[in-house]
Amino acid sequence: MNSEERKLYDLAVKHLDTAYAPYSKFHVSAALLTESGKITTGVNIENAAYGSTICAERVAIFNYVNQGLTSDPIKCLLITGNTSRPISPCGSCRQVMAEFMQAGTKIILTNAKGDYKEATLADILPYYFTDGDLADGRNK
Amino acid sequence: MNSEERKLYDLAVKHLDTAYAPYSKFHVSAALLTESGKITTGVNIENAAYGSTICAERVAIFNYVNQGLTSDPIKCLLITGNTSRPISPCGSCRQVMAEFMQAGTKIILTNAKGDYKEATLADILPYYFTDGDLADGRNK
Amino acid sequence: MNSEERKLYDLAVKHLDTAYAPYSKFHVSAALLTESGKITTGVNIENAAYGSTICAERVAIFNYVNQGLTSDPIKCLLITGNTSRPISPCGSCRQVMAEFMQAGTKIILTNAKGDYKEATLADILPYYFTDGDLADGRNK
Amino acid sequence: MNSEERKLYDLAVKHLDTAYAPYSKFHVSAALLTESGKITTGVNIENAAYGSTICAERVAIFNYVNQGLTSDPIKCLLITGNTSRPISPCGSCRQVMAEFMQAGTKIILTNAKGDYKEATLADILPYYFTDGDLADGRNK
Repeated sequence: MNSEERKLYDLAVKHLDTAYAPYSKFHVSAALLTESGKITTGVNIENAAYGSTICAERVAIFNYVNQGLTSDPIKCLLITGNTSRPISPCGSCRQVMAEFMQAGTKIILTNAKGDYKEATLADILPYYFTDGDLADGRNK
Repeated sequence: MNSEERKLYDLAVKHLDTAYAPYSKFHVSAALLTESGKITTGVNIENAAYGSTICAERVAIFNYVNQGLTSDPIKCLLITGNTSRPISPCGSCRQVMAEFMQAGTKIILTNAKGDYKEATLADILPYYFTDGDLADGRNK
Repeated sequence: MNSEERKLYDLAVKHLDTAYAPYSKFHVSAALLTESGKITTGVNIENAAYGSTICAERVAIFNYVNQGLTSDPIKCLLITGNTSRPISPCGSCRQVMAEFMQAGTKIILTNAKGDYKEATLADILPYYFTDGDLADGRNK
Repeated sequence: MNSEERKLYDLAVKHLDTAYAPYSKFHVSAALLTESGKITTGVNIENAAYGSTICAERVAIFNYVNQGLTSDPIKCLLITGNTSRPISPCGSCRQVMAEFMQAGTKIILTNAKGDYKEATLADILPYYFTDGDLADGRNK
C-alpha cells in the first residue's frame, strides 16, 4: 500500500467499531477513494431478518452515489475485518462494485492485523454481469 | 407537516435528481431526522442485476448507522418520489426501519407535488419481526 | 383453521427440519395453497454472508412461480416456526407476497405448538408498494 | 456438453417462458443436477420493488435445499438466457452457489442459441467468502 492507501486503511480500521453486528459479531469496514480524493466509508449493518443485512462495501458505495459523486470515478475500495486472512467481499458486494467500478479498479482486501491483498474488480468477479448483458438479453 | 418537517421535505425533493435509476427511471429520495437534529439522506440505487438494487429509505438509515448515530434516536423519516399518491415504502425498507425505529416513530410519505400522509412504523408494518422473535425461536 | 388449513399446518411443521439455518438456528417453514388445490413449500436458507439469506415464505412463493402456477391464484399462505407467538413474516417476504397475492389473500401465522393468527396481506402490509406505483412514478 | 448436460440445457431453454420478468423483459432459466441424478430448476422472479427480485440460479439452488437434497452434492448448474454471449450469473447468485457447491463444482453458462462456456465456482468467484471466514472474524 502507498501512503494514500495507508490512510484509507487506518480510517477503515478505526471505523470497525461502528459496525452494527449484534447477530454475527462479525465487524467489517470499508473506505472508498475517488480519483479527485474524496472518501466515503461503510460498515456492515445487520437485521434480525438476516436477509435484510447489508455489508460495509455496499454502504461505502451507496454513500458515494448518494453524495452525487458518480462523475468522479472510484480509484480504490479498501475493506477490512478481524479475519485471519485478508477479508473476502461477498458476491453481492462484488455485483454492486461492478455497477460503479471499471474492470481494472483497485480493491484492497486487508485484515485488522495488517495483512493485505490487492486485486481488481475483474480479478474477483470475472466475466461479470453488466447493463450490456441486460440490454441484449431482453425479449424484443 | 411542521416547519422542521417541511425543511426535510424540501431537502428530499431537491435530492431526487441524485437517484441512480437507469433501469426503472423511478427516482426516490429520503431524509431522516434524529432527536438531536442530525439529518441523513438517501436515494435509490439500482443495479443491472435488479435484485442488487437498494431503496432510498435504506440508504438514509444505513447512513444514520454508518455515521455512528444510533444512540441518537430517529425522530422522523420522510420519503418522496414522483408518484400520484404519497409514495409507499417497500416491505424490505419497512423491515430495516423496524431494526432502528420504535413502533411509534413517525414516517412521512409524500410526493413531489406536495401530497403527504403521516404514519408510524407500527401503522405500516403491523406485528413486525424483531430480534425478540429471533431469540425466542432459535433451536436450543 | 379448517381441515384444509390444518393439513397445510401439519405439512409445514413436519418440513421445519429441512430448514438450512446453521447461523441463526432459527428454523422457519411455509406452505402455500392455490385455489385449485396445489401446494408448494418453503424453508429458510441462510448464507455465511447474512444478506444472501432467504426466508421460507419467499421460497414457497418462488416455487409457486417456478412451477408455472401464476394463473392459479394463491388461496392461502401458512407460516410456522418455534416462536412463542405465531411467527411474524419479515418485511421483504411481505413485499414478495404483494407481487403475487391480492389484498384479501389469507395468511396464517402459526407456531409449532399450535397457536395461530389469521390475517390478510393488507392487514400485514398496509398501503403496499405495487407495479402501479412504479408505473406512475417513472420519469417521463 | 455431454448428453446429460445437453438434457439439462434443453430443459432450461424450455423453462425460459416460465420466468416472471414484467419489468426487465429479461428471462433467465437454470437447471441443477445432483450427483445421484436429481434435477431442480429455477427462473428469475421480479418485483415492482426491484431489490426484491430473485434470479433463476438462486431459485434452482433454493429448490435443491427445500427438497432436502443437501446430502446429495451438486454436480452441475446450468444457466441460460437470450443473451449474445453465454449468460453471466450475478454476484449474489455466485455467493449462494458458494454456500452449497465446492470450489470445483461445474457451472455451465449458455445462451438460447447454443453457445456455452464451462467454468467452476472458483473460476467465477475467486477467493470467496465462506463460513470459515465468518467464524474466524467474529469478535471474541
